[in-house]
Amino acid sequence: MIVEMKKGALQEQVNTVVERARSFGFDVQLNQGTDKVVVAILGSDTGKAPSDAFAVLPGVESVTRVMKPYKLASREFNRRASKVKAGDIEIGGKKIVIMAGPCAVESQKQLMDTAKSVQKLGAKVVRGGAFKPRTSPFAFQGLEDEGIKLLAKVKSDLGMLVISEIVDVEHIELLAKHIDILQVGARNMQNYSLLKELAKVRQPVLLKRGLSATVTEWLTAADYLMAEGNKKVILCERGIRTFEDSTRFAMDISSIPVIKRFSHLPIIVDPSHAAGHFEYVPSIAKAAIAAGADGLLIEVHPKPEEALVDGLQSLNLKNFQKLMSELKPIAEAVGREI
Amino acid sequence: MIVEMKKGALQEQVNTVVERARSFGFDVQLNQGTDKVVVAILGSDTGKAPSDAFAVLPGVESVTRVMKPYKLASREFNRRASKVKAGDIEIGGKKIVIMAGPCAVESQKQLMDTAKSVQKLGAKVVRGGAFKPRTSPFAFQGLEDEGIKLLAKVKSDLGMLVISEIVDVEHIELLAKHIDILQVGARNMQNYSLLKELAKVRQPVLLKRGLSATVTEWLTAADYLMAEGNKKVILCERGIRTFEDSTRFAMDISSIPVIKRFSHLPIIVDPSHAAGHFEYVPSIAKAAIAAGADGLLIEVHPKPEEALVDGLQSLNLKNFQKLMSELKPIAEAVGREI
Amino acid sequence: MIVEMKKGALQEQVNTVVERARSFGFDVQLNQGTDKVVVAILGSDTGKAPSDAFAVLPGVESVTRVMKPYKLASREFNRRASKVKAGDIEIGGKKIVIMAGPCAVESQKQLMDTAKSVQKLGAKVVRGGAFKPRTSPFAFQGLEDEGIKLLAKVKSDLGMLVISEIVDVEHIELLAKHIDILQVGARNMQNYSLLKELAKVRQPVLLKRGLSATVTEWLTAADYLMAEGNKKVILCERGIRTFEDSTRFAMDISSIPVIKRFSHLPIIVDPSHAAGHFEYVPSIAKAAIAAGADGLLIEVHPKPEEALVDGLQSLNLKNFQKLMSELKPIAEAVGREI
Amino acid sequence: MIVEMKKGALQEQVNTVVERARSFGFDVQLNQGTDKVVVAILGSDTGKAPSDAFAVLPGVESVTRVMKPYKLASREFNRRASKVKAGDIEIGGKKIVIMAGPCAVESQKQLMDTAKSVQKLGAKVVRGGAFKPRTSPFAFQGLEDEGIKLLAKVKSDLGMLVISEIVDVEHIELLAKHIDILQVGARNMQNYSLLKELAKVRQPVLLKRGLSATVTEWLTAADYLMAEGNKKVILCERGIRTFEDSTRFAMDISSIPVIKRFSHLPIIVDPSHAAGHFEYVPSIAKAAIAAGADGLLIEVHPKPEEALVDGLQSLNLKNFQKLMSELKPIAEAVGREI
Repeated sequence: MIVEMKKGALQEQVNTVVERARSFGFDVQLNQGTDKVVVAILGSDTGKAPSDAFAVLPGVESVTRVMKPYKLASREFNRRASKVKAGDIEIGGKKIVIMAGPCAVESQKQLMDTAKSVQKLGAKVVRGGAFKPRTSPFAFQGLEDEGIKLLAKVKSDLGMLVISEIVDVEHIELLAKHIDILQVGARNMQNYSLLKELAKVRQPVLLKRGLSATVTEWLTAADYLMAEGNKKVILCERGIRTFEDSTRFAMDISSIPVIKRFSHLPIIVDPSHAAGHFEYVPSIAKAAIAAGADGLLIEVHPKPEEALVDGLQSLNLKNFQKLMSELKPIAEAVGREI
Repeated sequence: MIVEMKKGALQEQVNTVVERARSFGFDVQLNQGTDKVVVAILGSDTGKAPSDAFAVLPGVESVTRVMKPYKLASREFNRRASKVKAGDIEIGGKKIVIMAGPCAVESQKQLMDTAKSVQKLGAKVVRGGAFKPRTSPFAFQGLEDEGIKLLAKVKSDLGMLVISEIVDVEHIELLAKHIDILQVGARNMQNYSLLKELAKVRQPVLLKRGLSATVTEWLTAADYLMAEGNKKVILCERGIRTFEDSTRFAMDISSIPVIKRFSHLPIIVDPSHAAGHFEYVPSIAKAAIAAGADGLLIEVHPKPEEALVDGLQSLNLKNFQKLMSELKPIAEAVGREI
Repeated sequence: MIVEMKKGALQEQVNTVVERARSFGFDVQLNQGTDKVVVAILGSDTGKAPSDAFAVLPGVESVTRVMKPYKLASREFNRRASKVKAGDIEIGGKKIVIMAGPCAVESQKQLMDTAKSVQKLGAKVVRGGAFKPRTSPFAFQGLEDEGIKLLAKVKSDLGMLVISEIVDVEHIELLAKHIDILQVGARNMQNYSLLKELAKVRQPVLLKRGLSATVTEWLTAADYLMAEGNKKVILCERGIRTFEDSTRFAMDISSIPVIKRFSHLPIIVDPSHAAGHFEYVPSIAKAAIAAGADGLLIEVHPKPEEALVDGLQSLNLKNFQKLMSELKPIAEAVGREI
Repeated sequence: MIVEMKKGALQEQVNTVVERARSFGFDVQLNQGTDKVVVAILGSDTGKAPSDAFAVLPGVESVTRVMKPYKLASREFNRRASKVKAGDIEIGGKKIVIMAGPCAVESQKQLMDTAKSVQKLGAKVVRGGAFKPRTSPFAFQGLEDEGIKLLAKVKSDLGMLVISEIVDVEHIELLAKHIDILQVGARNMQNYSLLKELAKVRQPVLLKRGLSATVTEWLTAADYLMAEGNKKVILCERGIRTFEDSTRFAMDISSIPVIKRFSHLPIIVDPSHAAGHFEYVPSIAKAAIAAGADGLLIEVHPKPEEALVDGLQSLNLKNFQKLMSELKPIAEAVGREI
């Protein structure tokens, strides 16, 4: 942490900064410039200290963080890329993992038909929302417990892994029993009550990026899960909110190399929510694999025009099949497999 | 809802759109342009229908909403501005309500001292966080239950109202017992599980704007509370996330007249979180009152340099006193009182 | 400038950083942390040095600026607030300056009628665009030279000052002859060719904030004008681009206290472009004065429903009159006058 | 254009809307809902009409555009993808075009060495800035005329095409004489004076996306060039400004399929400016090709650590060579060639 004193700050004001730094157990070094004093606060844990604790002191002009505020999710903490196991698959290895299925579980037939089809086309995990966080209280809220049971049935009948979103602490027991990968949605990325409870679960957690979360905040949220012992964290980029309105969100493709540089966690991409329109999904999906993503989470619906939720961004089976055949050579081009 | 067909769309594609609209119970009118057909879907409930249901149909180029997706929070639903009662005060009336206090409850002495001081200076409600949602798991998380009890003591000793943040469904009973106004933080604005439960509480709920929520999404979140029967909703603007980094968030001052136009709910402003720095708080607070806000939620700490959370954005008592004296003539200038 | 070396950086890599810093004429101090070396580069001109020059060196993890990149516009350069003279008025003094008039000059009658009316109501400067930068090439582009002549006539007939936008270096001579305050629009804030030429003019320049410019970039653009000798720079906040779509731009009200802290230049506010809708203009205008702005630039049109450009955000005369009467007590409340 | 009248709007207010629409030469159809009247304004040129002209009329609640405001750049105007010829190459065809070179021309040796190297590795166009628009007036501003001459020499010596940025109308003659592709930078995307003059040039113009321009605004800016007769427009996505600060700009990868859907113009990607750091450039470059981009504009410098401008985001020759070898199989995977 770097504390810049104001021009003409008093010696006793500098001393107060130094004392506070030492009270946190940090080392301190003074840099006497021509104009002003700059105090460098050193130590491997300075990322955890609140910068406010210094910024608020008299005579301080500004405080700049050097260390990142996250630790367990950082590449410095774990030099080797982590692979997260879920059932018999591994996320973060050579094989790119495709997760596909409907936005919402609507019925046994819809889910089973979709699951069989995407499995045949190469998807290893079927997705389906049972608890749906919807912007409007008047919209379809999901099949809830019944939806989880339908996912469990798909799992046992087809031998596929299942992923579903968790929105409430009280559903953890139910989901932990039936669901292989628990998904934290973008709107809950900073729902710390939920994160703390999920940290106690043994399943992998897929942590979607908040729609206006920085990469740093995202990795700090991952630290919430890891701090309590759950090391099986998968990150999922799904687009960020910007001024651009031709897509639902702006896919921040650069976050893939940024995450690979600063974190050891695997990262997959959800092209469907970013696009908001099925016509854009293939381009984004291909870009994600080319950029180094470890997997994809794609919305597929046998009849998007009858979907209860997000039909416009869902691929139909024909388009999903076409995409899968296009993804394979790209995966190979970057030294991966699907 | 306006459905624009593609150039050269087939008659049967138009028919499908019309049929789907009718299946929702809506009226339909066709507009035959020189280039393309535009289908107008009419009815007072079209705001609730998902635009995807039409956008996904073959031959459709685009779908545009005309009606807002929120209803109960809208000015059309309730032409007169709502006043929300909390104890013996009213938010949304002629009197501007000042809520002030520390970001986090730290100790009985800290809270009681602050409460007494701000009460003397004109604040009617004391604020103080007991459950703190923090970006980092390594940061101070609040005094939790103990903090709520300290707030309850302030309430009984000083006769002030208290406001505190709720972050978890499981704390509702505790907070509903002791706290006069339950605050939903920005990161929980779209935590629908929490909103649904809060809708059953009798206390007023202060709903902070999500840091990247549009005004429309904010009012739709308010509908979640109101749909289940809690009409006592107070909105709180606290700044939005943008590219600008000189302040913590950008205070969207225009949301005040926008809310006054489209909603009947009262709106207050939190200048502290937007500013991120105490030097900017007075300007933003004065601007908020001049723009028509119904109240302010201000962080005040007797010793900001010793605050455990957000000290930099807290006013000390001297600065709070100065601000209160500056606010009075502005309130009068806009026909209000403090 | 603070250079953080990578964990395990070699001594010779540190040396290279030190040598480069010295080659710029800066002082250097090494901070040996437990994990890594942090190099502090000191000197009053480090703000001008490109951070890339260090970030690109081997062994460097990150570079953080401490000094601002602007100099002449900074409060450190000039501790006293600057007052900018234009004709017989002063911007940045006790008196708040109101500039008002139509978005575009449309005809002699339109301009003269508006000017007379706003003058009577207290405006000291009449605005009117002659060269209009329009998003679409098919839209009305302004009366051009003819418009400037009409403004010159208003100036001589009514004794009002006139402000108009400059969009092209080749118009400088014409505008410098007739126009009192030359306005640089938001889309030209970083048109450095234009700024460099305007720096040679004797008139004050009103520099609008770019629609996605940070405050730091804005003040650095002001440095372009000042570096060549034009000290008469007036800043104009007009809203920034964000995800929010209920207004045309988000009025960043906090930039007023931020500018007052970091710069000595006067700042006025254009509430019309931010609002995009006349109903929101009064709230924003009042907020601006309460927050400390030194003036307002307001679009007023005698018949907004017949305006060729931006009618929706223009106040009619009745609404402008009402606003002026509401602004006076707010100005007094903050110790100013209109 | 869809005009929604207020609830209870008078018949004469509706009539005024209808008359204004007819005065523009548009057709009109009334939609009588249960609550309110919605007026559909029809015609192929409604995209050019200002929505304000209707929004400002009494009794109008809101106006929604259906037609896009751009025309010549639209896919509806030209169903087939355009190929832009520059010398002996074609942008928008099967072959992906790589443009590479230093951010700024620094010396004959630097430019010639880089050009030879990138040519050997497959680049068809060499880039180099002679006129540099810099955020700070104290930064290196380019070699100017001398730089253009050095580019001309490279062109004649190596037979490569050259691209360079134009920042000022007065340089058009010089650049048009020596430079094959004239680049309009992000900060000048809405410098309409410049666009209008460039529209008269015979060379292709590469139009970078403004850093906070929507896709719609970008295509409307392209219309400025095309409206005056220059059909040789190449779009260049270079990242947009958002809240994320780990990269210089957020690469909006989705704009590639969006442009392909709504426009016939070719689009290339500049991964260097988006990344801001050379380590991220390869991922973004590969993603761009996978997503369907027609080319890349990459900053390459033989010694990035000695670059005068933007060294951090420049690839050295070894990294550029590696990237070129990685791009080839991706290009093939999407049915293209490099």
